[in-house]
Amino acid sequence: MAESTLAARADGVVDLLVERELDCLLVTDLVNVRYLSGFTGTNGACVVSREQRQFVTDFRYVEQAREQVRGFQLVKGERDLLGDIAKRLHGRAGFDDAHVSVRTHRKLLEAVDEGVELIEAAGVVERLREVKDEEELRAIADATELADEVYELLRERGMAGRTERDVARELEGELRARGAEPSFPPIVASGPHAALPHAVPRDAKIERGTLVIVDMGARLDGYCSDCTRTFATGELDGRAAELYQLVRSAQGAALGAVRAGAGCAEVDAAARDLIEAAGEGDRFGHGVGHGVGLEVHEAPRLAKTAEGELDAGNVVTVEPGVYLPGELGVRIEDLVAVTDDGASIMTSFPKELIVLD
Amino acid sequence: MAESTLAARADGVVDLLVERELDCLLVTDLVNVRYLSGFTGTNGACVVSREQRQFVTDFRYVEQAREQVRGFQLVKGERDLLGDIAKRLHGRAGFDDAHVSVRTHRKLLEAVDEGVELIEAAGVVERLREVKDEEELRAIADATELADEVYELLRERGMAGRTERDVARELEGELRARGAEPSFPPIVASGPHAALPHAVPRDAKIERGTLVIVDMGARLDGYCSDCTRTFATGELDGRAAELYQLVRSAQGAALGAVRAGAGCAEVDAAARDLIEAAGEGDRFGHGVGHGVGLEVHEAPRLAKTAEGELDAGNVVTVEPGVYLPGELGVRIEDLVAVTDDGASIMTSFPKELIVLD
Repeated sequence: MAESTLAARADGVVDLLVERELDCLLVTDLVNVRYLSGFTGTNGACVVSREQRQFVTDFRYVEQAREQVRGFQLVKGERDLLGDIAKRLHGRAGFDDAHVSVRTHRKLLEAVDEGVELIEAAGVVERLREVKDEEELRAIADATELADEVYELLRERGMAGRTERDVARELEGELRARGAEPSFPPIVASGPHAALPHAVPRDAKIERGTLVIVDMGARLDGYCSDCTRTFATGELDGRAAELYQLVRSAQGAALGAVRAGAGCAEVDAAARDLIEAAGEGDRFGHGVGHGVGLEVHEAPRLAKTAEGELDAGNVVTVEPGVYLPGELGVRIEDLVAVTDDGASIMTSFPKELIVLD
Repeated sequence: MAESTLAARADGVVDLLVERELDCLLVTDLVNVRYLSGFTGTNGACVVSREQRQFVTDFRYVEQAREQVRGFQLVKGERDLLGDIAKRLHGRAGFDDAHVSVRTHRKLLEAVDEGVELIEAAGVVERLREVKDEEELRAIADATELADEVYELLRERGMAGRTERDVARELEGELRARGAEPSFPPIVASGPHAALPHAVPRDAKIERGTLVIVDMGARLDGYCSDCTRTFATGELDGRAAELYQLVRSAQGAALGAVRAGAGCAEVDAAARDLIEAAGEGDRFGHGVGHGVGLEVHEAPRLAKTAEGELDAGNVVTVEPGVYLPGELGVRIEDLVAVTDDGASIMTSFPKELIVLD
């Protein structure tokens, strides 16, 4: 990670400290630690204030930290970092109440100097992470491109007659063969199984003449991609083909609504209105999208009840779906970067209905 | 998981409730939830009291829970389970303060009925998990056997001239090809790199005539194995061969000290005394072992400062090492089940120094 990139992120934290009337922020969640410091090990924490930026790890990771961490003073602490962290906090010290355990909080309270107040301050780094910088956009684009290649392979090899689990395992293998990992366990769900909101690949064979939802992403250099396509394994009946086109239109409508300043609920509504108008409103039981970055689900959320607006530099999925219990499911998902005047679609794999063997 | 096995575990919780003067226990850590209920999904919690055993999940997992969960009343809650959990707590309600976040704790406090006290009670289920039942011993033995097969393959294929990363990736691939996952990212550390306490495989080629530490385990049906071997890639100088034999003897001595009733520090000392007598005491900077089960590191801990004694049914690693900074490292690790009269060694791959190409 470039030193200037990391410095800009820590500056962003300092701006939010002022807004929240905090003297310093303790960052312990390892994804947030990585984002701020560049450190990818499994034991490290940052303390950020206007005056100081300190990174604490134990002896096992000192070498690695020396290579990775930029813009922070490197502190070698005990394996349990708590004491070393505690003595670096001062004044109104923000901590991540969404991740810090009750026990750790109690120990911290016992260990800090007199006069230090621990203030609940979850979400500070997450808020910065919502807007991606150039390096991040590039990393997500790379992960997306890699997953697109694996989709191409799937198109060549076909699915009918193979089991869902077999196809899912192949997708995982192909991601790994390209130096990535799955950003979550791939979903391959065919026939009525595709209507389940949280399908796990089964040992059941994929039939001919049905719809198959494939939801998969790559994680490359820490950054995730996320893409869903629904394939046909042969000729479909009219209803299935119709629903595919409905979801396709809804997805296009939501993409059309994406731009900096658009309401997060407004983007959801663009897809939902179309699906409701077609009489399938209660068959679309999830939000239209979510942010993607170092985590495959992060802020912002695009849903009926979501507040706030999109910012330029957000990277979000746009993924409406329609699910008929006991029958079939369709979902189409692209990953897009939000720009001032619209959406830059990162996913390149086609969205016309593809009929595979 | 057999219903009787799960019932015995929940009974064990009830016994510990009495001991800790609790009226019920809230179990939220997903590893503990799995242990008690059989559930392998990513959103579920148990509430256990003398009178009731309830399992709460959301609509996405109801089907899966119906198939997996035994001995619990199945409750379908909201996606955020907090409210559904809160109304099932009564009296002195234990919660897992080592895993529950400050924020979740605060929300729970707001949501429980008047008169409910939330009591810090981390480690209740973990204590039960220390002693493995028959099903668990079998699962760990299966994972160990699978990893042993992969070690055999490594012996056939050799390592010299390949990169550490290449070998590590092959090991992962072979574990996956057999239906398992790595229980942690495999370590392949050669030459001076093997002296680092937390080596990550590099793109560097493995030289001839050096020592290579390979530390790897399989996770199969949720249960982990863990094994380390140190290989030679050709003729060694006298010092390296000597240190190998020292670690080999120390490992044998520690194995000899394992039995129900032995002190956890005593097992550590059996290896450490030998290494100290050879003048290498400060080159052995970690404990001699740790428990293994659903997690690859769990209780009990075998170390200089560890308290307590081994119980029959514990499964622990025995893994002394000697590390000369800038030169080399040796570690030899077996997985053993503790019995009344000794150690039943689960790992079968040989421990004589193996010279590979």
